[in-house]
Amino acid sequence: MTMSRTRPHVRFQDPSIELAHGAGGKASRRLIEGLIAPYVFESGTELRDVAEVALAGGRLAMTADAFVVKPRVFPGGSIGELAVNGTANDLAMGGARPLALVATLILEAGLPTEELEREMAAMARAAERAGVAIVGGDTKVVEHGKADGLYISTAGIGLVDPRVDLSAKRVRPGDQVLLSGPIGDHGITILLARGEIELEAELTSDTRPLWPLVEALIEAAAPGLRWLRDPTRGGVATALNELARDARVTVVLDDEAIPVRPEVRGACEILGLDPLHIANEGQFLAVVAPEYADAALEALRRVPGGASAVRIGAIEEGARPVVLARSRYGGTRVIDMLVGDPLPRIC
Amino acid sequence: MTMSRTRPHVRFQDPSIELAHGAGGKASRRLIEGLIAPYVFESGTELRDVAEVALAGGRLAMTADAFVVKPRVFPGGSIGELAVNGTANDLAMGGARPLALVATLILEAGLPTEELEREMAAMARAAERAGVAIVGGDTKVVEHGKADGLYISTAGIGLVDPRVDLSAKRVRPGDQVLLSGPIGDHGITILLARGEIELEAELTSDTRPLWPLVEALIEAAAPGLRWLRDPTRGGVATALNELARDARVTVVLDDEAIPVRPEVRGACEILGLDPLHIANEGQFLAVVAPEYADAALEALRRVPGGASAVRIGAIEEGARPVVLARSRYGGTRVIDMLVGDPLPRIC
Repeated sequence: MTMSRTRPHVRFQDPSIELAHGAGGKASRRLIEGLIAPYVFESGTELRDVAEVALAGGRLAMTADAFVVKPRVFPGGSIGELAVNGTANDLAMGGARPLALVATLILEAGLPTEELEREMAAMARAAERAGVAIVGGDTKVVEHGKADGLYISTAGIGLVDPRVDLSAKRVRPGDQVLLSGPIGDHGITILLARGEIELEAELTSDTRPLWPLVEALIEAAAPGLRWLRDPTRGGVATALNELARDARVTVVLDDEAIPVRPEVRGACEILGLDPLHIANEGQFLAVVAPEYADAALEALRRVPGGASAVRIGAIEEGARPVVLARSRYGGTRVIDMLVGDPLPRIC
Repeated sequence: MTMSRTRPHVRFQDPSIELAHGAGGKASRRLIEGLIAPYVFESGTELRDVAEVALAGGRLAMTADAFVVKPRVFPGGSIGELAVNGTANDLAMGGARPLALVATLILEAGLPTEELEREMAAMARAAERAGVAIVGGDTKVVEHGKADGLYISTAGIGLVDPRVDLSAKRVRPGDQVLLSGPIGDHGITILLARGEIELEAELTSDTRPLWPLVEALIEAAAPGLRWLRDPTRGGVATALNELARDARVTVVLDDEAIPVRPEVRGACEILGLDPLHIANEGQFLAVVAPEYADAALEALRRVPGGASAVRIGAIEEGARPVVLARSRYGGTRVIDMLVGDPLPRIC
């Protein structure tokens, strides 16, 4: 078939793909927005982790993720569990109760069967816990040396709660920024599990299903709920920078309000990393209208696992889209997106 | 969370994963049925390439595939085009018009950007041709040497035509077996594109969207339409053996009726392969009630690309589930599933 379609406007100029293009920060955004989206998405599409498809019976949310985490097993979880929770959580971030998942496996020849079985068991447990069915999939095997043991891709669907209307475009000055709990646990856990740095810490990944928390938030504050995002690769800083840009607002964080465990803070100080750039798997950010903020927080805190939910900042009118953090002494710093890739293959 | 779930009945005993486990034949079936399905699917699930999810507005089909084809570009197509057509065609095989796709990319660091751009363009063209929207996705990058350039996973949804009821369980003696066109083009094209054997042939992959053919078939013969399958990995032989097993019937093929191009037949003879074991990407098998067979064939032949559709056999009562091929001289041979992996990474 001859195509009349002309080459779309491709702004991505890097000659080849590097690890940073997969890290979820600035380089990822350049790749996605500059090369992939112009070809495969309709122009003007708001790039979210979850898409909506209109059906006769309602709005269907649909999402997909690839998982290449190294190591495959780490304190608190493994690649199979991440693959289920990560996709189920993207659906939750679209205001959708996870309904069904499909999964594809790319296996490296030579993978011990017991490792595959362990991850199948992890997926089954995670699916049961998240209340979602795994309904199908596909398995491919590549030669030894053409993968790294096991890569998993999951795609999921869910029905969007009819009460929610989530979009960066609905975020406005005065809205409050909520966070479900302490940040950085997943990223630092992975880093320590690699054994590349000498540091002992009692830390586990925060991987968990987020729908129970989101459901409580919808029940309590749906009319005031503007935006949800799980700050995975690139961390809270990257997620909020994307919000600032998409909503054309200034996000002002209360530096001391952001919960960070001492182990995470300590590791970040030693490594010269900002906890705001570290990946999470079981936390999320919510922007709510000010009159709903208290009800939203109370609702979150009543859900098991939600006790640490906290208000961490607010949206302000901004001449330019930026994320700022104010300390209690009045100092202000600019929080940038993640640049480079300090922690490759974090999920 | 403590799980009370006991270890399911795992029959797969191979100590490690080998290439044959991904080839779509007997070894694949042992892996899927013996290890993966017991963990992630509900017991008794009929294993098809497409799952159905009940929604208020109808029946939603959902499917996922991973693509690791080598080489990435071959006469008639490329990995990006396969990834779109393969998943859209699995939906069509579920009787569903493809509605939306999501795609994940696993990129090897060092991949030239122009190769990625070429595949994004291929995906966009294929999606346009198949009438399906790509609505989202995810991109990961792994270190050089931990993938082979580019792997793509696609997942798709579609609405099942309310007139169809497809299941091996509905297949009964007397039903006719139809085939949409010549077989083996894709597999032999890939083999030749690898340049590992000295053979010249003007052959291209048959990759194409199948929904237009399936839609015509539904219009003409929906009440008599029992079963659909695109014979990809493992070829026609494997697909029909799975049917024979699942339906507990004997499938009897008319050996001379099966369309095979001379180039494919020649390559198979040289290589000692059976065209019935060679992968296809743009053909499908249909089982229809005898009274609908003529109408079904006429309908298929009227669709562009359907002129070679043909009746290749019938379902007979069988003491044991088997696929037989009868020659015009009355000889009969047993057609087994694919064993081993003569052509790794075919899709």
